[in-house]
Amino acid sequence: MATPGSCPTTAAPSAGHPPVCLADASETLRPRLVLFGDSITEQSFRPGGWGAALTDTYSRKADVVVRGYGGYNTRWALFLIQRIFPLVGVPPVATTIFFGANDAALLGRTSERQHVPVEEYKQNLQKIVNHLRDYSKSMVILLITPPPIDEDGRERYARSLYGKDARRLPERTNEMAGVYAGQCIELARQMDIHCIDIWSKMQATEGWQKLYLSDGLHLTPEGNDVVHKEVVHTLRGAGLKAEDMPSDFPHHSKIDGNCLEKAFQ
Amino acid sequence: MATPGSCPTTAAPSAGHPPVCLADASETLRPRLVLFGDSITEQSFRPGGWGAALTDTYSRKADVVVRGYGGYNTRWALFLIQRIFPLVGVPPVATTIFFGANDAALLGRTSERQHVPVEEYKQNLQKIVNHLRDYSKSMVILLITPPPIDEDGRERYARSLYGKDARRLPERTNEMAGVYAGQCIELARQMDIHCIDIWSKMQATEGWQKLYLSDGLHLTPEGNDVVHKEVVHTLRGAGLKAEDMPSDFPHHSKIDGNCLEKAFQ
Repeated sequence: MATPGSCPTTAAPSAGHPPVCLADASETLRPRLVLFGDSITEQSFRPGGWGAALTDTYSRKADVVVRGYGGYNTRWALFLIQRIFPLVGVPPVATTIFFGANDAALLGRTSERQHVPVEEYKQNLQKIVNHLRDYSKSMVILLITPPPIDEDGRERYARSLYGKDARRLPERTNEMAGVYAGQCIELARQMDIHCIDIWSKMQATEGWQKLYLSDGLHLTPEGNDVVHKEVVHTLRGAGLKAEDMPSDFPHHSKIDGNCLEKAFQ
Repeated sequence: MATPGSCPTTAAPSAGHPPVCLADASETLRPRLVLFGDSITEQSFRPGGWGAALTDTYSRKADVVVRGYGGYNTRWALFLIQRIFPLVGVPPVATTIFFGANDAALLGRTSERQHVPVEEYKQNLQKIVNHLRDYSKSMVILLITPPPIDEDGRERYARSLYGKDARRLPERTNEMAGVYAGQCIELARQMDIHCIDIWSKMQATEGWQKLYLSDGLHLTPEGNDVVHKEVVHTLRGAGLKAEDMPSDFPHHSKIDGNCLEKAFQ
């Protein structure tokens, strides 16, 4: 199979004789995009999920790493950041921070243990952002507001779980989620970082309550699609366009069967 | 908010004063499952994809890392293994090796540049497995045979792309995919590693041609579901049951708001 010329050998490498310098071996093959948040992040690889879609959008370009923790608020999230973002090693190129749905749970209702006062929510987000800035000055940091709440949907969901024993008073309200969203947006403006106002964005579409939310809080595939599109749009605006990022190995059509080493140099 | 007792402080940590020992900081939070293969692996995070589903199955337990390279055969894959599996650092707990659909492309047809003789295909798989064993003696190594081929589906797909200019002779046949699948199974037996015979498994269901294959070769959501279920079944059989693996941080219901440090020790 070898042809005369500059590439005399075409045999595949044996596993014992690496064609790639070992000095490269410990380098990260692809940059990382970290998704840090609550259940809406944790569930983002379920069917139609925005995390899975993001993985596909950045296929062969970046690794999407999911760090979603269902039920967590920003107070609890602060305990995780030293482990998830340890300030050593190669930092992620981008991180989404998607908290607030639990912080905004109302006092005196069934989810009050997750409640964090809105001033503290903002301060906690600021601490997370500052920690990420300590890790990397160039990291794209992307805040996402809590999504809107459909109180009727929450009540239907509670009744489906607990029947007539379900509390009639909502544990979350859309108005309160909006207060937290507002503080998230203000912080992003103050710190000059990116922010997706998913609370407003979703409500701009007629019928958002059932179209985007499966239980009044978590996302349908259509709701996931909105988040995916907004995240990609923001990352692209921040310079992370998948088509401009290097592919970790050549496209198969670029591989010359008579000169394999060249393709994999 | 503090209550008398053994846990006097309830404040969240400041970002500057880590609650977690820095000696832990560079430790991997979650074990990794690496998916190494061709387009059927690369595309596994598209809607309904088996990679995304696996990520959700091992949510909070393991990171699923996709290393799929569309169009690649095992000869080209050998050039990647030193970079993807560099024999330094923490090895994956499990790796799927899913090649053969391109190796089995026929000589003298439109995809012949991807063809690898079946004896070499088997040898290449063996080299990959040996390399992974050099990396880790305990890694679960899981070979997956090429999927079946629906020749009518391939022809319809070619005509949809090239119209009447499409070649009438198939570039892949189901019979030839079966020959490669047989060698994959035999190697797994010889090396005493796990193997999923997806070629046979899919054909055991009536109407597999359109049910499981979108273009006679790549997978529909239903086809992805078969792969997902088989991979999970095999991993569980090898001791990787998600419910028995440690969660990287406590479930939110286990967090005592009056004693946060305890939850995150």
